[in-house]
Amino acid sequence: MLVVMKNDASEAQVQAVIQEIEGMGFRGVPMPGSLRTAVCILGNQGPVDDSRLLVMEGVKETIPVTKPYKLVSRETQPESMAIVVGDVKIGQGRPVMMAGPCAVESEEQALTIARLVKKGGAEVFRGGAFKPRTSPYSFQGLGEEGLKILAKVRQETGLLIVTEATDHTNLELVEKYADIIQIGARNMHNYSLLRHAGHASKPVLLKRSFAATIEELLMSAEYITSEGNNQVILCERGIRTFSDNTRNTLDLSAIPAIKEASHLPIIVDPSHAAGRRDYVIPLSKGAIAVGADGLLVEVHHDPTHALSDGMQSLYPEQFTELMKEINNLIR
Amino acid sequence: MLVVMKNDASEAQVQAVIQEIEGMGFRGVPMPGSLRTAVCILGNQGPVDDSRLLVMEGVKETIPVTKPYKLVSRETQPESMAIVVGDVKIGQGRPVMMAGPCAVESEEQALTIARLVKKGGAEVFRGGAFKPRTSPYSFQGLGEEGLKILAKVRQETGLLIVTEATDHTNLELVEKYADIIQIGARNMHNYSLLRHAGHASKPVLLKRSFAATIEELLMSAEYITSEGNNQVILCERGIRTFSDNTRNTLDLSAIPAIKEASHLPIIVDPSHAAGRRDYVIPLSKGAIAVGADGLLVEVHHDPTHALSDGMQSLYPEQFTELMKEINNLIR
Amino acid sequence: MLVVMKNDASEAQVQAVIQEIEGMGFRGVPMPGSLRTAVCILGNQGPVDDSRLLVMEGVKETIPVTKPYKLVSRETQPESMAIVVGDVKIGQGRPVMMAGPCAVESEEQALTIARLVKKGGAEVFRGGAFKPRTSPYSFQGLGEEGLKILAKVRQETGLLIVTEATDHTNLELVEKYADIIQIGARNMHNYSLLRHAGHASKPVLLKRSFAATIEELLMSAEYITSEGNNQVILCERGIRTFSDNTRNTLDLSAIPAIKEASHLPIIVDPSHAAGRRDYVIPLSKGAIAVGADGLLVEVHHDPTHALSDGMQSLYPEQFTELMKEINNLIR
Amino acid sequence: MLVVMKNDASEAQVQAVIQEIEGMGFRGVPMPGSLRTAVCILGNQGPVDDSRLLVMEGVKETIPVTKPYKLVSRETQPESMAIVVGDVKIGQGRPVMMAGPCAVESEEQALTIARLVKKGGAEVFRGGAFKPRTSPYSFQGLGEEGLKILAKVRQETGLLIVTEATDHTNLELVEKYADIIQIGARNMHNYSLLRHAGHASKPVLLKRSFAATIEELLMSAEYITSEGNNQVILCERGIRTFSDNTRNTLDLSAIPAIKEASHLPIIVDPSHAAGRRDYVIPLSKGAIAVGADGLLVEVHHDPTHALSDGMQSLYPEQFTELMKEINNLIR
Repeated sequence: MLVVMKNDASEAQVQAVIQEIEGMGFRGVPMPGSLRTAVCILGNQGPVDDSRLLVMEGVKETIPVTKPYKLVSRETQPESMAIVVGDVKIGQGRPVMMAGPCAVESEEQALTIARLVKKGGAEVFRGGAFKPRTSPYSFQGLGEEGLKILAKVRQETGLLIVTEATDHTNLELVEKYADIIQIGARNMHNYSLLRHAGHASKPVLLKRSFAATIEELLMSAEYITSEGNNQVILCERGIRTFSDNTRNTLDLSAIPAIKEASHLPIIVDPSHAAGRRDYVIPLSKGAIAVGADGLLVEVHHDPTHALSDGMQSLYPEQFTELMKEINNLIR
Repeated sequence: MLVVMKNDASEAQVQAVIQEIEGMGFRGVPMPGSLRTAVCILGNQGPVDDSRLLVMEGVKETIPVTKPYKLVSRETQPESMAIVVGDVKIGQGRPVMMAGPCAVESEEQALTIARLVKKGGAEVFRGGAFKPRTSPYSFQGLGEEGLKILAKVRQETGLLIVTEATDHTNLELVEKYADIIQIGARNMHNYSLLRHAGHASKPVLLKRSFAATIEELLMSAEYITSEGNNQVILCERGIRTFSDNTRNTLDLSAIPAIKEASHLPIIVDPSHAAGRRDYVIPLSKGAIAVGADGLLVEVHHDPTHALSDGMQSLYPEQFTELMKEINNLIR
Repeated sequence: MLVVMKNDASEAQVQAVIQEIEGMGFRGVPMPGSLRTAVCILGNQGPVDDSRLLVMEGVKETIPVTKPYKLVSRETQPESMAIVVGDVKIGQGRPVMMAGPCAVESEEQALTIARLVKKGGAEVFRGGAFKPRTSPYSFQGLGEEGLKILAKVRQETGLLIVTEATDHTNLELVEKYADIIQIGARNMHNYSLLRHAGHASKPVLLKRSFAATIEELLMSAEYITSEGNNQVILCERGIRTFSDNTRNTLDLSAIPAIKEASHLPIIVDPSHAAGRRDYVIPLSKGAIAVGADGLLVEVHHDPTHALSDGMQSLYPEQFTELMKEINNLIR
Repeated sequence: MLVVMKNDASEAQVQAVIQEIEGMGFRGVPMPGSLRTAVCILGNQGPVDDSRLLVMEGVKETIPVTKPYKLVSRETQPESMAIVVGDVKIGQGRPVMMAGPCAVESEEQALTIARLVKKGGAEVFRGGAFKPRTSPYSFQGLGEEGLKILAKVRQETGLLIVTEATDHTNLELVEKYADIIQIGARNMHNYSLLRHAGHASKPVLLKRSFAATIEELLMSAEYITSEGNNQVILCERGIRTFSDNTRNTLDLSAIPAIKEASHLPIIVDPSHAAGRRDYVIPLSKGAIAVGADGLLVEVHHDPTHALSDGMQSLYPEQFTELMKEINNLIR
C-alpha cells in the first residue's frame, strides 16, 4: 500500500506516518517525487487497515499497490527515474553508451580500448575483472588486479567504470573501485548477492537472466531496493529460445514493458544477445528506437585475440560507425 | 551450384547453359542481375560435375551454393530485391506501411478504416476474408464476399490489397481479387499451399511461423520460388518463448539475419507479436531502425468492437502518431 | 452447453432435443455414453437460454462447457474413448505399437521392415508416401505408388496402415488406401485440411505441432470432430525449446494433461522428438509409464541408408529389445 | 587428456605420473576405477605433449577428453558411480525416494511429514531452511532454526536430510547439519557457490537450472568436482518453454543424455516441474521408467496450508500411492 502525502506535507508529517506504519509492525519507505512524497508500506501479508493513516496530518490518500514488486513499481513512483553518476545521467535524456572489452586483459589492452571508445563517444567503460564462466577451466578474470586497471582507466580517460561482481567478497572490491556495480544475467536469481548489492553505496546495473520474465527481473531489482539501494539500472541482454540465428533472442518488447511497469532506467546489451558483431549495429539502433536509455556494447581493439568470445566484439571502426548511426537516429 | 555468366554474355548463351544443365538431368533457373546473369542449378543430389559448363561460351565461373535454400539465397542473387506492386516498391527504399483490420467485417467497416489509414500514409490495406482461427466456432471471415469488399476498397482509395489465403481453393480467389497474397504463420509449413502460391501471378507475403528458424522460413520461401514465383516478401511476427510480457517475442534480429542470408525484402508485424496496442508504436520504431522494409499493422476505427483480438488494434489516432514517429525516424 | 438426457431417455426424445436446439439456430451433436446420452450445443456465441430445453421430456439437466473445445472435452464425454480399427483397440487397454520407416522407399523395403516389426509385436505399420519436407529439393515420397505398397503390406502381413496426408488431394488417396490417416505436426494448424479430415471415414492420428499448447492441439482435434469424424487419436512428438540434447523436447506431461482434458486416446512418437535412436527405448518406456496409449516408432532394416533422417530409426534388433522392455513394464 | 594406467600399476607409479603432470604446469587428478586407475590432466589450454608420460612406468596409454567437462565425463570414468550416504546408495540400484515439504515450517510440521514419508518408504527427507524466493517479501525459511529441526528429524526417524544452501554462509551451516547439500536451480550458474560446495565434505545435489543445457549442468558439476568434491548427484526439474500445461516442461530425455555423458547419478523432481500434484504420480513413473536413480518429491500433511506453493505438494495418501506405483514398476 502507498500512503500519498499532500503536496505541502512537511517532513515531520512524513516521519510521523513512517512511525505509525512501524507501529503497525510494517516498514515505511519514503518515495520522494517532484510534486509530492509517498510512503510505501512493506512487509504486510494481506491488506493493511489504513484507517489510522488516513486521518493523519498531511496524508492525502492511500493507494493499493497491485504488483508483487513495490519500490520499483511505477505505481509507487510514477515519474521515470534518472540515475546520475558523476557527470553521466542514465535515463531521462540522451542514451548513454557503455563500451569496452568482455574482460580486462592487461593495462595496455584496457587503456587502448578505453581511449578508442572515449573518442567514439562512450561515457562508461565496461570490462570484467571477475568473469562468471561456464567452464572452471576458462580464464576467470584478473580479479582485484583487473579492478586496479579499471581505476587507472577512469583516472586516465575520465570514463566511468562498470564491472561485474559475482559474490559477496568481490562485490566489496567492485564497490570500492567501480562507479557502477554489474550483477550479471547468471546471478539475477542469486538473491543473497542482490541483498548485498542493496547495501552498496554505488548504483547497480542488473542484467535480466536469459530465462527470466519481466516480473522476475523487477522482483530481483526489488531485492536490491528493499535493502536500501534504489539506484538500479536494468539491462535486457537476450533470452533463450529455440531460435538459432543469434546466441540469444533480444527481447526489445522488454523496453516498453519495463517502462510501463517501473520507473527504473533500462539499457540494452546487443553484443551478448547477438553473439556476433555484424548484428550489433542494427540491434543497437532498434534498441534506441524502441526507447532504451543506453547501450552496453563489447568493443575490442583486436577482437580475434580477445580473451573471451571474440566473435561478438566490435572493431573500433564499427564502434565509431555505431555512434554515428545512433547520433543520426536521435538527432 | 551457380553458373555465373560473363557480363557480356548473350541471351542465347544463357539458354545454351540452361539446356546443357537440363541435359545433365537438372533444372537451370536464370537469375538476372544488374551487371550479369547467373544460372542456378536445382535438383542435384550432391556435387555437380561442372567441367562441361566451364568451357561453354559466355560462362565466367561456377560457384557452389552452400545453403540448403538456393533461389532465395543472397549467394545466387547478391543484390537486394525490391518488389514492385502498382506504384508501391517494397524493399530498397522508404519503408512501406500496410495497415487495416484483422478481419473484413463489412463494407462500411473496411472503407472507414481504409480511408483513415490511407490518410495516415498507408500504401497497402490489410484485412482478412479467410481467417485461420484456433477455434472452429470463431468467426472465420466473410470469404469471397470479403474479397469483393477489399476490391471495392482498392477502387475507392487506391490502396493496394493484401489478404490471406489458407488453402488451394481460396488461394485462387485471393489471387483474383488481391494485389498481394498473404500466407500466414500457421501455414508457413503447409508446403502444398506454398507450391500453389508458387504458381500464382501475384507477389506473396510469407509470414514466419512462430516456431520457425530463419532457415526454415527461407526454405518455405524457396518452395514458392522454386515453382516459378520469385516475388516473395518475408514477414517477422514474433516467436513462441517462455516470456509472457507479449503474446509472442518479436525477434528483430531476424531482420539483419535475413538481410544477410537473402535478397528478399522483409517486413515486420508488431501487432500480432505484441498482442497489445500500447507496444505497437515502440516496436514499429525498433523494426524500422533495425532495417525492416515495411510494417504490417492492425488498425480499427473501433477496436473494442473489432471481430478479432481487439486488444491489439491501434486506434486511428495511434496510427497517425505511429506514422509521424516513423517519418521522424527516417527523415 | 451440454444437455444431459435421463438414463432411460428414448432416441426420439434425444432427436426432439436436437431439433429444438436447431430451432434455436444452433447445432446439437449427440454424445452417446455407456449410461446416458448427452447433446452438445455448438455454434452459440455466449450463453444459451436453456429454459425450453429443461422442460423437455427425457432431459435431466444442462451443464455449461467451460473449455473452448467442446466435442473432444471430457466435460461432454467423461468416459475415456477407445478407437477400434480392425482387431486393434487404441486406448483403454494394452498400448498399441505403430512402427515402420519414415518413408516408403520401395515394396521390398516396406515389406522387409513390416515383417520385422510384425514379428516384434507391432500392430500398425507406419510409412510416409507424402512427406512434408523442409526442403523442396528433398525426396517427397512415392505418392500414390507408395500407398499401393502400403496396401500390399497390409495384405501380406495383416498389419494396419497409418500414413500421412498433407493436402486435400492426397487426403482422399490416403483415406482410400490406409486404415488411419495421419495429420503431421506441421499441418496441425492447417484448419482447411483438418476440416477435410473431419469428413473422412477413417480415424485420424493428429500430431501435436512442435509449437502448440495442449489447448491448441485439442482445438485442432475439435476442427475434425466438429465436421463429424470423432475418431481422433492424438500424438505427442516433442516441442521446440532451447534445449539441445534432443531434436525436440518430448513433453511427457502432455499425457496426463490430455487425459485430464479429453477422452481421446493419446500416443507418443519418441523417434521424432529425440532425433537419435539411442534415446528411443528409454523415452518409450517413459511414455508408457506416464500413461500413453501407444507408441509411434521409426524402424528401418538398414537405418544408415534410410531415405530420411536415418539417425533416428531403430535397428530391427533394437525394436525387438524395445518391445521386450515395454512388455516387461506392463506385465 | 586422460593418462590411463596399466591394471597392475602401483600407487607409486600413479603418484609419479601426477608429479610429472604438475611439473608440466598442470593438475593431475586420479580417477580410480574398479579395474584400473586413470589420471585426468586439468588446466591445459590446448593439446598436451604426452611423450614424456607415455614412457613412464605403469602408463598404458593417453586418451584425449573431447568434452569441455572432464572429471564428470564418462570419458574419464566409464563406470556409473553410486553415491553412498549412510545406508543409502544413490545410483546403481533401486531408485531412492527423497520426500518432504517445500519449507520447514515448524518442528511439528517437519516431524509429522517425516514420519509419513518414512512410513511410505522414503529414505531421504527434504525441506528448505533457506528458501530462494522470487519475492523479498515472501517467507525466506527458518534459517539455522530450520536446520536444527531437520537434525531432529534425522535423529527421530533415521531419514537422511537434504536441504538447500543459497550462499557461502549458509552453505557452512547446511554442511554441518545436513547429509546432502542441495544447490537449487536458481544457483546452478552461481559459480562462486559451486566452488565452495566443491570444498564441502558432504555430497551435493545439483539441480539443473530451468534454462540450462545438459552441457551447462555438467559444467556446473565440474566446478564442484574440480575443487575436490566428486560426490555430485544431478537433478532434472523442468525447463522453461512456451508450453503452459505445467509450470515447467519436465525434460525426461535429460536422463539418457546425462547417463551417456556422465557417470554421475541423476534424479528427477516432478513436483517443481509440474507445479500441480495431480501430474506428480504419472511423471514420477515416467522418470523411473526412463532410468532416473531417484525422485525428489514434495509432500505435505496439509498441502492447502503449506508455506509455499501448496498446489504441488502431494497429500500423504498420494505419496503412499506413488510408492506403490513405483514399486510396481521396478518389481
